Amino acid sequence: MSKFWSETVKGITPYVPGEQPGVGQVIKLNTNENPYPPSARVLDAMKAAVSGRLKLYPDPECRGLREAAADYYRLPIENIFAGNGSDEILAFCFKAFFNPGETILFPDITYSFYEVYAGLFDIPYRKIPLDDHFDIPLAPFFEQNGGILIANPNAPTGKFTSLDSIRQILVHNPDKVVIIDEAYVDFGGESCVSLIPDHPNLLVVHTFSKSRSLAGLRIGLAMGQTELIEGLNRVKNSFNSYPLDAVAQVGGEQSLRDTETFELNVGRIIKTREDTVNRLRELQFDVLDSRANFIFATHPGVPAVRLFEALRRQDIIVRYFAKPRIDNYLRISIGTDEEMEALCRALEGILAEQTR
Amino acid sequence: MSKFWSETVKGITPYVPGEQPGVGQVIKLNTNENPYPPSARVLDAMKAAVSGRLKLYPDPECRGLREAAADYYRLPIENIFAGNGSDEILAFCFKAFFNPGETILFPDITYSFYEVYAGLFDIPYRKIPLDDHFDIPLAPFFEQNGGILIANPNAPTGKFTSLDSIRQILVHNPDKVVIIDEAYVDFGGESCVSLIPDHPNLLVVHTFSKSRSLAGLRIGLAMGQTELIEGLNRVKNSFNSYPLDAVAQVGGEQSLRDTETFELNVGRIIKTREDTVNRLRELQFDVLDSRANFIFATHPGVPAVRLFEALRRQDIIVRYFAKPRIDNYLRISIGTDEEMEALCRALEGILAEQTR
Repeated sequence: MSKFWSETVKGITPYVPGEQPGVGQVIKLNTNENPYPPSARVLDAMKAAVSGRLKLYPDPECRGLREAAADYYRLPIENIFAGNGSDEILAFCFKAFFNPGETILFPDITYSFYEVYAGLFDIPYRKIPLDDHFDIPLAPFFEQNGGILIANPNAPTGKFTSLDSIRQILVHNPDKVVIIDEAYVDFGGESCVSLIPDHPNLLVVHTFSKSRSLAGLRIGLAMGQTELIEGLNRVKNSFNSYPLDAVAQVGGEQSLRDTETFELNVGRIIKTREDTVNRLRELQFDVLDSRANFIFATHPGVPAVRLFEALRRQDIIVRYFAKPRIDNYLRISIGTDEEMEALCRALEGILAEQTR
Repeated sequence: MSKFWSETVKGITPYVPGEQPGVGQVIKLNTNENPYPPSARVLDAMKAAVSGRLKLYPDPECRGLREAAADYYRLPIENIFAGNGSDEILAFCFKAFFNPGETILFPDITYSFYEVYAGLFDIPYRKIPLDDHFDIPLAPFFEQNGGILIANPNAPTGKFTSLDSIRQILVHNPDKVVIIDEAYVDFGGESCVSLIPDHPNLLVVHTFSKSRSLAGLRIGLAMGQTELIEGLNRVKNSFNSYPLDAVAQVGGEQSLRDTETFELNVGRIIKTREDTVNRLRELQFDVLDSRANFIFATHPGVPAVRLFEALRRQDIIVRYFAKPRIDNYLRISIGTDEEMEALCRALEGILAEQTR
């Protein structure tokens, strides 16, 4: 605590990201990165952008990237906002659409950054408990609120909420912004971008860090009707005129144009996920149905924290949250087949030892 | 105006950056970019970082970049913060160190983003009028305040405030954070980084967009005692865990290690600036003494706005601010000798025509 800190900063509890170990022999299944590299097309375009032109400011409106997104999502370019990762976009959303004094709603078990933003921007919030199957109950989201934030598929559960449920939430909240954080939607979910034309209160947030193999680059998009995009632009232009550098803009644009590599990698990850789920269920794990690039699993015989620590000793890093309701679960990112094979073997050994 | 916008967003007036025209024949002297490209060492390191590793998140703590900065500035690494451009860092500063209800101070003529941040974060401010020579008066900064923000050299004037003056401001405000925005200090100013060990309330902000030829990359640094850096980290970690992408981190690191190119380019720009000032004074311009990579000039015979428009018609873009006290001035970035020669010739022609 410092006398120089603002009252806000004295009170906040910052987010703690998953460990980013140095280069080494670890199997890193803790931050939901993509196990496959970005395509040559993306890397080549970026290398070409690493040039003397970097002396100039980048396009503050990210036109090339947003045009590619407009084509990909079949939306007008005015419905697209680009930011420095979806984390930055979500932060902008708190400032753009929520008011201190109006309680926003999000699930009790979800991306833990949401309550951090609320702390930073002094937005009151109520956590809506997921049901016993970790599904999102609808009725609480029909009550009075100052805005709604839902991750779909949810994290860290991986569970998907149907578009029909999202539509009901949108219809019940015509004057409030409903933000659907679809960071993981490409791994088998269905995007509610299709609902944008009928719902002026819907904002959909995507990231390039998961399905597009570009966590190192920091690109996110928001899609919604022009009014919402304009709200985000007002915040962005009051915060940083140029949040996306010139090299990242080019990489993001080519990623959106390269559907082939994208679909190939996503398909491989889904296949690996299903194989891993089956394998873990054979080991008596209770694994939630996942539509994400991670799975959420618990074992009846051994506490999750013991599994987490035992894996760590074997240089396999997964994510463990010491939080109510989920403190007996592991969140395991889907890596390559080889990495998941190593994980399953390690778990087999640990279980044999611990349940002996 | 939209019913979906927050009260803050309804009320703010976003910043408008200088024009970024597409590639063409324009001579671009409007956003204080560096006319020289980043060095081969910087570009080579960045190209090497454009690799499959981009599938992984970047180092959230920017260690390589901050270590290079620690070496360059001769400070411990704990005294260094890295952000996505100095604009982002300044935004973080408003959240980290200023409180709604406590009036902060900055000059009436300065970087116009400061009042935009104040609007975004609801921080009241008082503008301290520069004196008739556009110098910063000291006494008003000794009065009660909630924090102080000074650009040094100032923009758009280019005038430098002595370290002794800064020291007096620091000493009179032991409980308030004094932020010195040194975006242009490398062009002949003297950095107050040397004052950090003696002044826990001093935060110095630098950018790579001007002297380091990396506007396209978005890198800024803040230097101060550990308490202040920790305050910034708390905001950053409540906003975006990874504001700097992996490629930018590497580029910034190598730029700090390559002092030779840096000093060469800065020296050339200072030389070109002095030549241009002499040339414009011969044309009867009143040119302020500049320690930046731009000059601020007015002509007794022709209104600045007319000069601005006439230059624009000849594809020479400079910056004009339609604001009280400075609406008869042009801010002209220092380009190459050839670009400044073209500017001076164009002005010669325009003056000959307009004062005929």
